[in-house]
Amino acid sequence: MLVSTERLARHVATSRFDALPRPVVDEAVRSLVNWAGCALGGARHESVDIVLASLGPFAGAPQATLIGRTERSDCLLAALANGIASHVLDFDDTHPDTLVHPSGPVAAALLALAEWRAVSGAELLNAFVAGVEVECRVARAVLPAHYEVGWHITGTAGVIGAAAACARLLALDDRRTAWALGIAATQAAGLREMFGSMCKSFHAGRAAQNGLAAALLAERGFTSAPAALEGARGFVQVLSSTPHPEALVADLGTRYELLLNTYKPFACGLVIHPSLDGCLRLREAHALRAGAIEQVELVVHPLTLELTGKPSPRTGLEAKFSVYHAAAVALIDGAGGEAQFSDARVNAADVTALRAKVRVQSDASLRKEEARVRVTLAGGARHAVHVADCVGSPQRPLSDAALDAKFLDLARPVLGARSETALAALRAIVQARDAAALVRDNLGAH
Amino acid sequence: MLVSTERLARHVATSRFDALPRPVVDEAVRSLVNWAGCALGGARHESVDIVLASLGPFAGAPQATLIGRTERSDCLLAALANGIASHVLDFDDTHPDTLVHPSGPVAAALLALAEWRAVSGAELLNAFVAGVEVECRVARAVLPAHYEVGWHITGTAGVIGAAAACARLLALDDRRTAWALGIAATQAAGLREMFGSMCKSFHAGRAAQNGLAAALLAERGFTSAPAALEGARGFVQVLSSTPHPEALVADLGTRYELLLNTYKPFACGLVIHPSLDGCLRLREAHALRAGAIEQVELVVHPLTLELTGKPSPRTGLEAKFSVYHAAAVALIDGAGGEAQFSDARVNAADVTALRAKVRVQSDASLRKEEARVRVTLAGGARHAVHVADCVGSPQRPLSDAALDAKFLDLARPVLGARSETALAALRAIVQARDAAALVRDNLGAH
Repeated sequence: MLVSTERLARHVATSRFDALPRPVVDEAVRSLVNWAGCALGGARHESVDIVLASLGPFAGAPQATLIGRTERSDCLLAALANGIASHVLDFDDTHPDTLVHPSGPVAAALLALAEWRAVSGAELLNAFVAGVEVECRVARAVLPAHYEVGWHITGTAGVIGAAAACARLLALDDRRTAWALGIAATQAAGLREMFGSMCKSFHAGRAAQNGLAAALLAERGFTSAPAALEGARGFVQVLSSTPHPEALVADLGTRYELLLNTYKPFACGLVIHPSLDGCLRLREAHALRAGAIEQVELVVHPLTLELTGKPSPRTGLEAKFSVYHAAAVALIDGAGGEAQFSDARVNAADVTALRAKVRVQSDASLRKEEARVRVTLAGGARHAVHVADCVGSPQRPLSDAALDAKFLDLARPVLGARSETALAALRAIVQARDAAALVRDNLGAH
Repeated sequence: MLVSTERLARHVATSRFDALPRPVVDEAVRSLVNWAGCALGGARHESVDIVLASLGPFAGAPQATLIGRTERSDCLLAALANGIASHVLDFDDTHPDTLVHPSGPVAAALLALAEWRAVSGAELLNAFVAGVEVECRVARAVLPAHYEVGWHITGTAGVIGAAAACARLLALDDRRTAWALGIAATQAAGLREMFGSMCKSFHAGRAAQNGLAAALLAERGFTSAPAALEGARGFVQVLSSTPHPEALVADLGTRYELLLNTYKPFACGLVIHPSLDGCLRLREAHALRAGAIEQVELVVHPLTLELTGKPSPRTGLEAKFSVYHAAAVALIDGAGGEAQFSDARVNAADVTALRAKVRVQSDASLRKEEARVRVTLAGGARHAVHVADCVGSPQRPLSDAALDAKFLDLARPVLGARSETALAALRAIVQARDAAALVRDNLGAH
């Protein structure tokens, strides 16, 4: 009988675009549109600048597109930089069951590789689906202890997903695909302690780069262990005190993890979204003015307070993990986009004043998509709302139109008038004969 | 009060060659001689060939020496390749308290960086000492659970040591050194499941490469978390269920981890050495011939059986972790060098025949440096030996002369007549004005 690593590898190596159900293909396109928008929005972030300045002197030929930038770089550095860009705004997608941000590692690796080996849009989509499938399954196999103890699961599961996707794009056989998964698994890394620093998005980029490298090494015969994932000293057992190796292969090929993917309406940590949604609803329903607000009370899922309980963030990066900031700025600005998490907005007097009036309480009976928000006005009046299912949650997914609008908002400052063409090209990727040309022509800056 | 990450960073940033005790400098030179010999011996291994063939197409300018090879590569790829080369024979140094192989990650990173930023031999040695100090301390902070659960500690601690060393060579200030430690900590990886595959030495190389990258990123201001090592979701807590964060800084600056370093007389897993030493002693004392041996009985520390209990290895790599193979081949060949762990020797009829006669039993009352060996001959005669302290152990360290001989054995097939000059240059590294020239002129192949 095949062990799990081998079964996963065979699944990846034998996956075909023609066999994908239509809803899976549609969701892959939605994921790529969302991912590309986020990467464009984050492309000029300081984190990306520093990576290119620091590692550029050691880089190879300009083989691949740096999304949203005029320079190009070698494929491995492009995977790193584009992976960082796509996650640095904390605006990318989320697989809610695992808290993995699936597209960052997988798409960044694939797009870079596609400029090295010519593939069609359909082949790229098929590899993307396979990569996300492996990524979310290895995540399930190590949860819940893995995340609770402090692993950033987008880094740890991401590198394995990226390797799976690249192995598919390189058309590796079963054995080499299994090696790729193993070479990736033994690079799995990323600590939650880093949240709020540049290292958080680095995890997504490094996962993309190292997963790509794993597939390239396996292609030439670099070996790893046969039971890299499920073995006694393998990924699942070592990175989790609650191992579920059976999750690696349960219903493999009949259930698609990608169908569970979600997209953020707001540019901050996912667990903040229900509170932010509630603040926006109250603001609109009651035409609230910030100056009149005496107190803001939030009741949230315990994880919200654990991950985003920072009352006084000092930078935009920190503010993306402050439910206090998000509530305050949403009540003032009536929005939760990238502009609300700039350094300037975080330190603006009106925001810091209202932020100090936000109280947060956790309630274990709430689901993660749920929150209660109550605003008390100076005169004593109170307004409250119960958000049962936040916008962007699996129960209230973002529509195609909302996703397109999000893409255009993020793309316009970078691509300008080319944004609509880029969106149309991504939406039509199934028909693209050359995935690399699509990326090069549409996602680089001029 | 400074947290541990900050205190370690300050220690690294303020370390000076002139303040190092003479025995520490001497041990640093011994470590480098041993490391360079191992890297020369492993330089033409298939693992290194595959890495250069797979990742070479994405590499930058030929900035740095690939030890024992005629090509050159960019500094980051050189750190990876040289780190792999130095560990692939499993012949490099060991810090016995932690089982870290300290020089691999640290030296491979430093030598590559020295060809990018000009430094003296003394500066390189000082950075090496600082790197090993940090590496062994972070290892102590996560033991014993870290290793037991399945982490390859040379990978996980190595990347942090390499970053510390490179931060020192780049003369980073306290704050940037702390960032470098954090960027490294969040890349810490490597699974023991990989032992016996090419990924084992990959861990040492990747640690070197990623540690170097961490320091380069920190130099330009890439941020990480302030308490990257000791924080609630930081390296120590996440990678160990027996955390000892106090070990990060206990006696910092007064006790030197490098003084505990040891060097292998035999080209295989360290826990095999006492048994191998015993077999060689019995063979010499009683002029044993393999054909006359009926049975070989080994009594060993439990870790020996756990790590090297493979009775029938199929490849040289596997055989380096088979106490069965080592005992058999030592009794036949009267040696435990690289030649005894070739694929050919592993599958030779005389070796497989004797290997089948080896019995191994573990005894928790033995120390790791200890073993009992008993050989029963066809006629019924029995010979036994108790190895109390294996050669190469802290109690019976390799002499300078033995280290030099080991270097020359490993260097000669690669450097030929240049081997003695290379050894003399390494022995005189304290006086070297330009560390890069020393490496370039002496360790590359012609």
